[in-house]
Amino acid sequence: MLAEQSGQLIALDWGTSNLRASLLADSGRVLQTRSTPGGVMQVSDRKFEPVLRATIGDWLDGFNLPMIASGMIGSRQGWVEVPYVDCPASLGEVANKLVSVPVGERSLKIVPGLRIQSPARGWDVMRGEETQVWGADLAPGTWAILPGTHSKWLQTGEEGRIQKFSTHMTGELFGLLTKHSILGRLMQLESDFSAEAFDAGVRHGSAEHAQLAHAIFAARTAGLMNDWSSAQLPDFLSGILIGAEVASMRNIEPDIHPVLIGDDALCQRYERALTFHHIHSMRAAESTTSIGQWRVAHAAGLLK
Amino acid sequence: MLAEQSGQLIALDWGTSNLRASLLADSGRVLQTRSTPGGVMQVSDRKFEPVLRATIGDWLDGFNLPMIASGMIGSRQGWVEVPYVDCPASLGEVANKLVSVPVGERSLKIVPGLRIQSPARGWDVMRGEETQVWGADLAPGTWAILPGTHSKWLQTGEEGRIQKFSTHMTGELFGLLTKHSILGRLMQLESDFSAEAFDAGVRHGSAEHAQLAHAIFAARTAGLMNDWSSAQLPDFLSGILIGAEVASMRNIEPDIHPVLIGDDALCQRYERALTFHHIHSMRAAESTTSIGQWRVAHAAGLLK
Repeated sequence: MLAEQSGQLIALDWGTSNLRASLLADSGRVLQTRSTPGGVMQVSDRKFEPVLRATIGDWLDGFNLPMIASGMIGSRQGWVEVPYVDCPASLGEVANKLVSVPVGERSLKIVPGLRIQSPARGWDVMRGEETQVWGADLAPGTWAILPGTHSKWLQTGEEGRIQKFSTHMTGELFGLLTKHSILGRLMQLESDFSAEAFDAGVRHGSAEHAQLAHAIFAARTAGLMNDWSSAQLPDFLSGILIGAEVASMRNIEPDIHPVLIGDDALCQRYERALTFHHIHSMRAAESTTSIGQWRVAHAAGLLK
Repeated sequence: MLAEQSGQLIALDWGTSNLRASLLADSGRVLQTRSTPGGVMQVSDRKFEPVLRATIGDWLDGFNLPMIASGMIGSRQGWVEVPYVDCPASLGEVANKLVSVPVGERSLKIVPGLRIQSPARGWDVMRGEETQVWGADLAPGTWAILPGTHSKWLQTGEEGRIQKFSTHMTGELFGLLTKHSILGRLMQLESDFSAEAFDAGVRHGSAEHAQLAHAIFAARTAGLMNDWSSAQLPDFLSGILIGAEVASMRNIEPDIHPVLIGDDALCQRYERALTFHHIHSMRAAESTTSIGQWRVAHAAGLLK
């Protein structure tokens, strides 16, 4: 029997930049994965079905398996806008609100995102991170940080609920400032990591987290004064932004021991910044998304 | 006698985006002004002399007048990098440190910028705003705000000194976020000003100024929830950024009555945000730059 023949679920992690398709067996074990740069912002005129067929056409033709997708594919810019579920929300509540889109004779079930919308608790949204967190199977009351383009900090509640969360545009700001702003003029990107420059940035960004639009300008001054080389400046700026993020959250939640979920290199940066703030953190397994998708599919009754 | 024949100084306000050349008579009175999009970031290979000749070649040929320039033309990306003068600095100290570049048989005197470089007082730089402030002739101890791509807050000292200052990348962040970030996806730019959306942004940005990378994400959530229309969202974001800037400075300098110097529409936004924080402000005359340039040229002995 071919490995593929034990497949039970096709799981799509469909984000802004990339589509990552996995063929899953029992308990979310990954049999095969394929990635393409066919993310939501890369596809014009919502031509998502051709992208899907180009990526896993053989799986669609070869196996009659249920399909689930999480991430920005359910956003306003995605295949269909799947209504947000109000936070706090449990895995079970979200699994009851999957939205189907047809793929030929079959259907793809898209996981809704979560929203917070209240004068007292603020306004915020997430799509995809909820499924990653359910894959990490955290104890109630645990804090998790999912670093990225839009970093999420969230706390779990009873029965797998996501109790509250907040988004920080740290990764996107770093990209904008290095690629398009005056700060990038003095920088050489794609350089080796400079721990020294990053840590100095964390110190500065933490001290001045309450005036971030001012704090980041230090990456201009430091470049003009030759305090850091053009190769070190991106890490100095990265430290300022991540340091400010951690400092601002520490003010609001002073006693947390978060679990980091995500890309290894980025998690290492957050670990350095958390350590600077004497915050002890742990790491989740790297690929929690497919396990989360498996659990949602199971709760929704999609699995045989 | 032609008006031009009473000219005494050619004054160049040469910034990142534009060159604004003025022919000045007694006391900095403007006889003629010409603007071109020949700013420092618009000119390749430092071909500044051809830009200057194309703009005011007739003035160069017709009158034998001293020439002065302030702004980014003296930066590392400019005609020549004019060394910064350490802050606090007076008009007289800066006038002693003009740097000449040859323009044919003549010379152009470039005004240095100011820097702060100390562990206790931070790191910061400015180029051009010092000259604008000297044109406003502020009493010692006065605070000034110069809104813009890189907003400056500064305090004057005795004898026309600039005592301290800080830069806030508010304008550049607004440009980056509306043009290149996910926030811009929901926005319709170049819309009429929405005071309602701007004021709501000021409230939000002020309350959450200590976590700006989170606060700006409200412009995504508010768009998705249809709290503001695509035409109103840019003003909501503008309010968040300006509100956060004012709130962060108010924490540091709680009792100031600043003078606003700059573009009328932008000053109006700052006035709304300052009023929200019960900060009374005043306006300087609109074109303080040429008067400042006149004063620096006078102190440097350039005028006949």
